[in-house]
Amino acid sequence: MVGGGRDAFIGGVHRMAMRLDGKIDLVAGSFSSNAEKSRLSGEDLLLDPSRVYPDYSTMAERELTLPVGERIDFVSIVTPNRTHVPVAKAFLQNGFNVVCDKPLAFNLEEALDLQQIVGKTGKVFALTHNYTGYPMVKEARELVRRGDLGNLLKVVVEYPQGWLINPIDAEGKKQAAWRTNPEQAGASSCVGDIGTHAENLTRYITGLEIDEICAEFTTFVKGRRLEDDANMLVRFKGGAKGVLYASQISVGEENSLSIRVYGTKASLEWHQEDPNDLIVKYGEAPRRTYRRGNSYLSGVAQRFSRIPAGHPEGFIEGFANIYLEAARAIEAEANGQPIPADCDFPTVKDGVEGMLFIATAVKSAKGGAVWTRMSNAR
Amino acid sequence: MVGGGRDAFIGGVHRMAMRLDGKIDLVAGSFSSNAEKSRLSGEDLLLDPSRVYPDYSTMAERELTLPVGERIDFVSIVTPNRTHVPVAKAFLQNGFNVVCDKPLAFNLEEALDLQQIVGKTGKVFALTHNYTGYPMVKEARELVRRGDLGNLLKVVVEYPQGWLINPIDAEGKKQAAWRTNPEQAGASSCVGDIGTHAENLTRYITGLEIDEICAEFTTFVKGRRLEDDANMLVRFKGGAKGVLYASQISVGEENSLSIRVYGTKASLEWHQEDPNDLIVKYGEAPRRTYRRGNSYLSGVAQRFSRIPAGHPEGFIEGFANIYLEAARAIEAEANGQPIPADCDFPTVKDGVEGMLFIATAVKSAKGGAVWTRMSNAR
Amino acid sequence: MVGGGRDAFIGGVHRMAMRLDGKIDLVAGSFSSNAEKSRLSGEDLLLDPSRVYPDYSTMAERELTLPVGERIDFVSIVTPNRTHVPVAKAFLQNGFNVVCDKPLAFNLEEALDLQQIVGKTGKVFALTHNYTGYPMVKEARELVRRGDLGNLLKVVVEYPQGWLINPIDAEGKKQAAWRTNPEQAGASSCVGDIGTHAENLTRYITGLEIDEICAEFTTFVKGRRLEDDANMLVRFKGGAKGVLYASQISVGEENSLSIRVYGTKASLEWHQEDPNDLIVKYGEAPRRTYRRGNSYLSGVAQRFSRIPAGHPEGFIEGFANIYLEAARAIEAEANGQPIPADCDFPTVKDGVEGMLFIATAVKSAKGGAVWTRMSNAR
Amino acid sequence: MVGGGRDAFIGGVHRMAMRLDGKIDLVAGSFSSNAEKSRLSGEDLLLDPSRVYPDYSTMAERELTLPVGERIDFVSIVTPNRTHVPVAKAFLQNGFNVVCDKPLAFNLEEALDLQQIVGKTGKVFALTHNYTGYPMVKEARELVRRGDLGNLLKVVVEYPQGWLINPIDAEGKKQAAWRTNPEQAGASSCVGDIGTHAENLTRYITGLEIDEICAEFTTFVKGRRLEDDANMLVRFKGGAKGVLYASQISVGEENSLSIRVYGTKASLEWHQEDPNDLIVKYGEAPRRTYRRGNSYLSGVAQRFSRIPAGHPEGFIEGFANIYLEAARAIEAEANGQPIPADCDFPTVKDGVEGMLFIATAVKSAKGGAVWTRMSNAR
Repeated sequence: MVGGGRDAFIGGVHRMAMRLDGKIDLVAGSFSSNAEKSRLSGEDLLLDPSRVYPDYSTMAERELTLPVGERIDFVSIVTPNRTHVPVAKAFLQNGFNVVCDKPLAFNLEEALDLQQIVGKTGKVFALTHNYTGYPMVKEARELVRRGDLGNLLKVVVEYPQGWLINPIDAEGKKQAAWRTNPEQAGASSCVGDIGTHAENLTRYITGLEIDEICAEFTTFVKGRRLEDDANMLVRFKGGAKGVLYASQISVGEENSLSIRVYGTKASLEWHQEDPNDLIVKYGEAPRRTYRRGNSYLSGVAQRFSRIPAGHPEGFIEGFANIYLEAARAIEAEANGQPIPADCDFPTVKDGVEGMLFIATAVKSAKGGAVWTRMSNAR
Repeated sequence: MVGGGRDAFIGGVHRMAMRLDGKIDLVAGSFSSNAEKSRLSGEDLLLDPSRVYPDYSTMAERELTLPVGERIDFVSIVTPNRTHVPVAKAFLQNGFNVVCDKPLAFNLEEALDLQQIVGKTGKVFALTHNYTGYPMVKEARELVRRGDLGNLLKVVVEYPQGWLINPIDAEGKKQAAWRTNPEQAGASSCVGDIGTHAENLTRYITGLEIDEICAEFTTFVKGRRLEDDANMLVRFKGGAKGVLYASQISVGEENSLSIRVYGTKASLEWHQEDPNDLIVKYGEAPRRTYRRGNSYLSGVAQRFSRIPAGHPEGFIEGFANIYLEAARAIEAEANGQPIPADCDFPTVKDGVEGMLFIATAVKSAKGGAVWTRMSNAR
Repeated sequence: MVGGGRDAFIGGVHRMAMRLDGKIDLVAGSFSSNAEKSRLSGEDLLLDPSRVYPDYSTMAERELTLPVGERIDFVSIVTPNRTHVPVAKAFLQNGFNVVCDKPLAFNLEEALDLQQIVGKTGKVFALTHNYTGYPMVKEARELVRRGDLGNLLKVVVEYPQGWLINPIDAEGKKQAAWRTNPEQAGASSCVGDIGTHAENLTRYITGLEIDEICAEFTTFVKGRRLEDDANMLVRFKGGAKGVLYASQISVGEENSLSIRVYGTKASLEWHQEDPNDLIVKYGEAPRRTYRRGNSYLSGVAQRFSRIPAGHPEGFIEGFANIYLEAARAIEAEANGQPIPADCDFPTVKDGVEGMLFIATAVKSAKGGAVWTRMSNAR
Repeated sequence: MVGGGRDAFIGGVHRMAMRLDGKIDLVAGSFSSNAEKSRLSGEDLLLDPSRVYPDYSTMAERELTLPVGERIDFVSIVTPNRTHVPVAKAFLQNGFNVVCDKPLAFNLEEALDLQQIVGKTGKVFALTHNYTGYPMVKEARELVRRGDLGNLLKVVVEYPQGWLINPIDAEGKKQAAWRTNPEQAGASSCVGDIGTHAENLTRYITGLEIDEICAEFTTFVKGRRLEDDANMLVRFKGGAKGVLYASQISVGEENSLSIRVYGTKASLEWHQEDPNDLIVKYGEAPRRTYRRGNSYLSGVAQRFSRIPAGHPEGFIEGFANIYLEAARAIEAEANGQPIPADCDFPTVKDGVEGMLFIATAVKSAKGGAVWTRMSNAR
């Protein structure tokens, strides 16, 4: 692991997600840009001190010197956006597989560059757009794929949070500070941090590709340097329309990602805060609630469930599903086998799409919320 | 009553709303542009045949010839949009008070004209934006007014329906046919019919005034002449932002008007399909659910409740609250007294605002979903 | 109307329910055992003073002296339990139809006596077990009837309220005082007032007959003379089992009547506070939510709906359905026709069953919560 | 681990719960009474074959022969009820700490015997009544403890499941077969398997002690040897009353454990299927929803949360909290320190209470659902 030292949030989530299924052991890490903090974090995690490194370059190099069976199988990158690509490159180029937090990169150029490198090295690259790991999100995709919804007309996807309503970034809260700092986060805060999850979730479930965006960015908290709220109208290729918004200043909202997809035959609705349910609505029939863990679900939804219906699974379990699939691919790669066709995890391609989305939204917003083509943001 | 003959939907709702509290009797009407149908509808309603008129002009004139205590106190107009203003004018100019369904008029010019006439005649004019009649909507306004939410930052208001997913308008279903016919409905179907409720509800609760709109209209059903879906970004005066959408093709949605208002201190959430609850969310305190009929509610919410908490009130009761307040004003007017200051019903001014909103949205949409100022639509 | 004067709760509900559909006019009444209060209540209701009577006997007699087309068609009795039967007898014996609030009588003997009188007079007698008037309760019954649930195994029905947690009866709140006074209410408060609704709802939906009850009564509030909480185990004829409870001291509960019925194939769930939804659960299929006003519902559920899906109907509308059906029967009776076979309202027979249920529960509770057969309570 | 081989359900849950926080490694096991199956299960789990044992006695003995730092710190027992006590005794008597699935024992005598042994050995004994591991259950207990609810009057606790509606036990489904087999499960199926969770949850949150039970057991599925449904009335010491039921034949219910606690000041409500919310209701104030992960919660609820509000935690996380606390006690024990006073996990005492509850319910049911004192079941 690179990043995820003491006080980090997402690093701990990654570790729980890794551990859950007993297939992945954390054995080495560079947990902080501060070498001492890295060392202490390694102690917290009961790691062999010889494999706790002062920086990621050292880690990539030294691990390579270990015998094949002993070195890490992959690296998990959980640093701020700024360093995703440099770290990923260092490991890829030393022959390691990579699992990386989102968004993929600091900007689109970096992302495209990384995509090339991944292609060249042939290594596994998994991006933790974790919300697609939820079984009922997978069920939603199945319903769309098998035509239960008919042709898709409209998508409403929203991701309100309220945790940045106060200037906690200016007051030194680290989680907040880097996310609203353009030197760390890139050109966007709210869209880069959570809007991109909304975009990824939409693409995953519907398969729709965004054609144009009209994005209104607002910075509601004084002194903040990046947007903390973004509302968008979306035109998809093929004629479907969308509303997408993300917010960090919607007081009282916790992590309220939700999506509604409307087709000609039926519509579906999923709420991240109630992730075990998937609601399907019809014009001429009772609404249905599909619930995780039941035998009537599609095979893919069942494959990603661990416990019976009514025993709620949550965020960590969904996140762990990304790791499980990445691990499956990494195992195949390690054995010189092709990656199984049904491996289901976000890749560098998803990451590039996400960066393109961010860049397009930023461009639209800077122009005063004007319609902007995705293809023009490159 | 003018309009609301056999097979009409909203006429029956108005009649139930009128009757509920025992203060209003339906005694006369012109229920259809077809005189025979009007006559039969009058029979259905057990009216004195001498007061069932073949057309609205005859009604306005003849009622005027009756002695003061016997003639109607007001007329209720429940015709398609096309004829709201002509009918209203006929009655106003004969000295009758008016209750009128929304939207106010066929177009903005008519609306402004009517506003002048109402002003000149000094008669009561109530517009049935019925959703503001719900007690918990009134409570929501109180919470905003007394500052519980702090400064308002963002509003998300949505009104999806699914009943027009199939071309039932082209297949002769009357309710649908006039709503999507520009000769009957005006320049907009979806926004005129329901988007305007969303706008009115927003203004009622928040007091915010819209400055600019970016409106994307879509007609998803082939052959339909007006839009059946509209997504908008909104800029309010003072800096708040909004998302507003309305849809008639969101399959499986029934009448799912809902609003979320985000302030600096707290946010609120109300769903028309669950109208007895009002949810308030805080950053640092448990969520609260305010429920209709309880002693802890503000006076205004209590004043508009009829039965105890836990005994659900619904759409008709909310609608009846508009009539109750209009009746209070009409009674005052009849007695030569000033209209009570706390009379709480939508007026011609709300209707003009609504028409301005529709006109602005139409203009924005026609321009390709460009930002359009409310003030430029006049 | 008899009863329902100023300050009464249920009288006002009855009047709204009567008025809603425009088929029933309130034209006469004896609104209080206090003649002056009756007179004033009549004034409030804008009634002809000559038809506002000082007591119910006078009313029954005088109305009889009016010409057939002018006298009342039926009387609505909304007094405390103590006087239901004497009032009903007075009117029945003078040839009037009766609508009566529940429970039917002060005790079982009275109830059986009244049943005989109703039988002899051949008049219509409707009991306002209003919860069976909700369209989705009717849908629930249809699902059971047509076998969607298979054989019924278990029923859980609960009716918690919290309004009597404080001794407001001792403090003079009239609504509370008579309900907990054995001279006014009879042998039971909580079970007589609301437990009997739970029993009636169960019988209406399931058709099951109670065989034995084990009833634990508790009086939690000091000084109260009747139980304010009752928990029961139930054995139905045929082997199904049940849990039934009612409470007036469950703080924070409003009017939370709900029922769950479990069969061999499926189960259903309905909540009075969310009356437009009916949830059906299956072992091997997604849950379904049936919603009022939709075309996929059974004919009977549609017949008792007034407005489209998503426009919530509530308590008053459900209550009005009892009046609508009683009115249909009364109209037939007045016209010398047989009562339509599909007339769907609670009758004196339901009232007797309810009194038997109360008597059985009281007997069980007095014995220390011992199993008691319904057949032994007579 | 003892038990939890291939095809077992609860063994896998225990392993995920152990792993989640990175404090516990599974290093040895006897996974089945079938030695070959145990071996294969060990392989699945990537264990050192030398520490996969053919039976539990061998395991207890051999582990003892390992050096102190290498042998297991505790054993986790996930076998059917029949063998909980023999296995626990074997390990306790060899000086190992124990984590054991519930119910504690095959019968009350065994349980009391085990309690003595635990006392004598001074070892840590944790029982996985996992539902008390949920943070919001801990918050519920805090609310009761600090008096927010006032004096407790009534508890309604229910645990319906539907998975045994068909005779899958007779058809060879192993999970079902042992649970309904009196030789494996003991004198009760439904109450022993899930009713005991309801009892434990009630005691944990409220601190109330059951005085008397009236329990109605039913076996709805033909040929089944133990009850598959149980409804109970409960009298607590001090005068509070309760309703408790459990069911395995409530079709369509998944794992719907829920509890409502009513006090003189407020009531609370928690649903296992929606575990991140705790609802508190008041007579004279809006309802509150306390949500996991928020700063306004009590310290104990925060201590058992891993991720921020709005990122749902589920069953596994709650279960893991039992392991976390047991591990804390075991670590203290290993270090010769006293067990921290705030260690919060179910102990052998809870297990004895649970067995007493089962025995009392069985006795009541056998007597025809007669009131039976807890103290008489010993």
